[in-house]
Amino acid sequence: MYQWKQLAAAGPRTAVLYRAFTFHSHRPEGNMEKNLQLVRNIVPPLTEKKHKGQDGKIGIIGGCTEYTGAPYFAAIASLKVGADLSHVFCTKDAASVIKSYSPNVIVHPVLDSSSGVDEVEKWFPALHTMVIGPGLGRDEKVLENTKVIMRKCQQRGIPIVIDADGLWVIVQEPTVIQGYSKAILTPNVVEFARLYKAVLKDPLDECDHQGNLLQLTQALGNLTIVQKGQKDLISDGTTVLICSQQGSGRRCGGQGDLLSGSLGVLAHWAFTAGTEKTDGLNPTLVAAFGACVLTRQCNYQAFQKHQRSMTTSDMIAEISTAFNKLFES
Amino acid sequence: MYQWKQLAAAGPRTAVLYRAFTFHSHRPEGNMEKNLQLVRNIVPPLTEKKHKGQDGKIGIIGGCTEYTGAPYFAAIASLKVGADLSHVFCTKDAASVIKSYSPNVIVHPVLDSSSGVDEVEKWFPALHTMVIGPGLGRDEKVLENTKVIMRKCQQRGIPIVIDADGLWVIVQEPTVIQGYSKAILTPNVVEFARLYKAVLKDPLDECDHQGNLLQLTQALGNLTIVQKGQKDLISDGTTVLICSQQGSGRRCGGQGDLLSGSLGVLAHWAFTAGTEKTDGLNPTLVAAFGACVLTRQCNYQAFQKHQRSMTTSDMIAEISTAFNKLFES
Repeated sequence: MYQWKQLAAAGPRTAVLYRAFTFHSHRPEGNMEKNLQLVRNIVPPLTEKKHKGQDGKIGIIGGCTEYTGAPYFAAIASLKVGADLSHVFCTKDAASVIKSYSPNVIVHPVLDSSSGVDEVEKWFPALHTMVIGPGLGRDEKVLENTKVIMRKCQQRGIPIVIDADGLWVIVQEPTVIQGYSKAILTPNVVEFARLYKAVLKDPLDECDHQGNLLQLTQALGNLTIVQKGQKDLISDGTTVLICSQQGSGRRCGGQGDLLSGSLGVLAHWAFTAGTEKTDGLNPTLVAAFGACVLTRQCNYQAFQKHQRSMTTSDMIAEISTAFNKLFES
Repeated sequence: MYQWKQLAAAGPRTAVLYRAFTFHSHRPEGNMEKNLQLVRNIVPPLTEKKHKGQDGKIGIIGGCTEYTGAPYFAAIASLKVGADLSHVFCTKDAASVIKSYSPNVIVHPVLDSSSGVDEVEKWFPALHTMVIGPGLGRDEKVLENTKVIMRKCQQRGIPIVIDADGLWVIVQEPTVIQGYSKAILTPNVVEFARLYKAVLKDPLDECDHQGNLLQLTQALGNLTIVQKGQKDLISDGTTVLICSQQGSGRRCGGQGDLLSGSLGVLAHWAFTAGTEKTDGLNPTLVAAFGACVLTRQCNYQAFQKHQRSMTTSDMIAEISTAFNKLFES
């Protein structure tokens, strides 16, 4: 709370900030191969001794009257990246539709219920990561439940990925997430600007994307932010990774859900692997880099087949081959 | 009742148990081919003279607000293994979703109704085997109905396969199933430990999986237990079969439902064929071995195509070729 208020008061561009940036490791695009290797390091081996759940049990908070595709994309992406179980916690009227997309996803119609928080919380022991926001919508009751769920995840130390209207919750009340090092926010350009304004109380510097990112990340207490864009910029307030893997110009809706769902699994793997496997880098950065590069590779592959007709479903169908190409040795 | 209480009182490892074990046939992995042949013996020929229903009419008890994929996987697996008809008996709000997965499955929304038991029972004359548990959930009313259905199946001599939260019913009240020789329980590692503790009142011997299995099976009155794991161990309290068919390290949710649904059909076939076709072996063992080897082969084949992205739907798509490869001469 104190930190971001102070920064906001100090104004956006301080020498201190830039020193922090240049002093700490900055891994530009030339390090794509090195960063890819770090992702490979955290991918768990598939041995015969494994049992159900070990490779990831992911919860998705989202899905409402309007949006049912988004939480499905996040959930199915998490399974296809390698999670064993994926649970969607959505509103009552979204559940049947999400279920009908695939029998592989478990769906709980609880998010708009007065006991919604309790219903989600009782699944905490059975979840490794929570992805909050895909298809969440703006219903007040749902947003209030979501805010409480964010707090409870932190109390339990569950890594959380926050996207879409999950970020709206943060815009309304940044302290909800401030200082939680296991949080990864994945704003697009619009969402990033909104967050920046809410936290820093200042306009963006249109010429300094990395500076903006470092500022916001630090102001939020060094959680991790993935700024999606022409290039994806990833930072935990000290290090900046850049993902410039080739995708395509196709920007159909749902790609961010593929990213957030994938990131749910990769975050679990990265925290399990620990910094020994990530060359000392924050596990959140390696997980985020993995999700960005995978999403772009899926986009690239699907675009080769479908061009302008490409939808997110076509990208989901590419996860297996994209993952193998990028991460399996 | 008396037997398992006595065993629990006597403590877990008695010389008598081990004598029983070594004296009776123990069919280790070297007998894979021999056991496969026994499964082939029970597969009914597909002749032009057959009519609908003869090759299997399977009931699935399961499907609730959260879980709709599990009963669907069990039902569709039973059809793809060769059953003619598959009925799912689920809660009211799960029915439409399960129906939407496939027009080949018949779905009855009755399991949470006060007349639920009667609604299921009236279908008994039209069912060969009952698979109890896939996606059952933990609702008290549903579990109570399920318990009564288990008892009524026994009164009528219907073979029953019990998995997932069907096993939870047994954990609460082991006498419900005790001594029913046409029951096949299919616990995973966690469920087995829970059952063992409930019945034997003692911790598992971590070094003696077969000993644990024989003990629990005998304590439950020589029904059949399939202990799923790195290798599947199958026992009726006298014989132990081991299934070590190659699968993969992928442990996505739903694989157990493919197994229980397949087992529903194979149990019908095995009881119809009788011990002449099973070389004197308990038909339940041959059916269980068949379901285990088939599930592992589906896992293996689907993994070759999809690797880490494999879901249970991908395994379902392999049933036909896996079955042919293993069981058709």
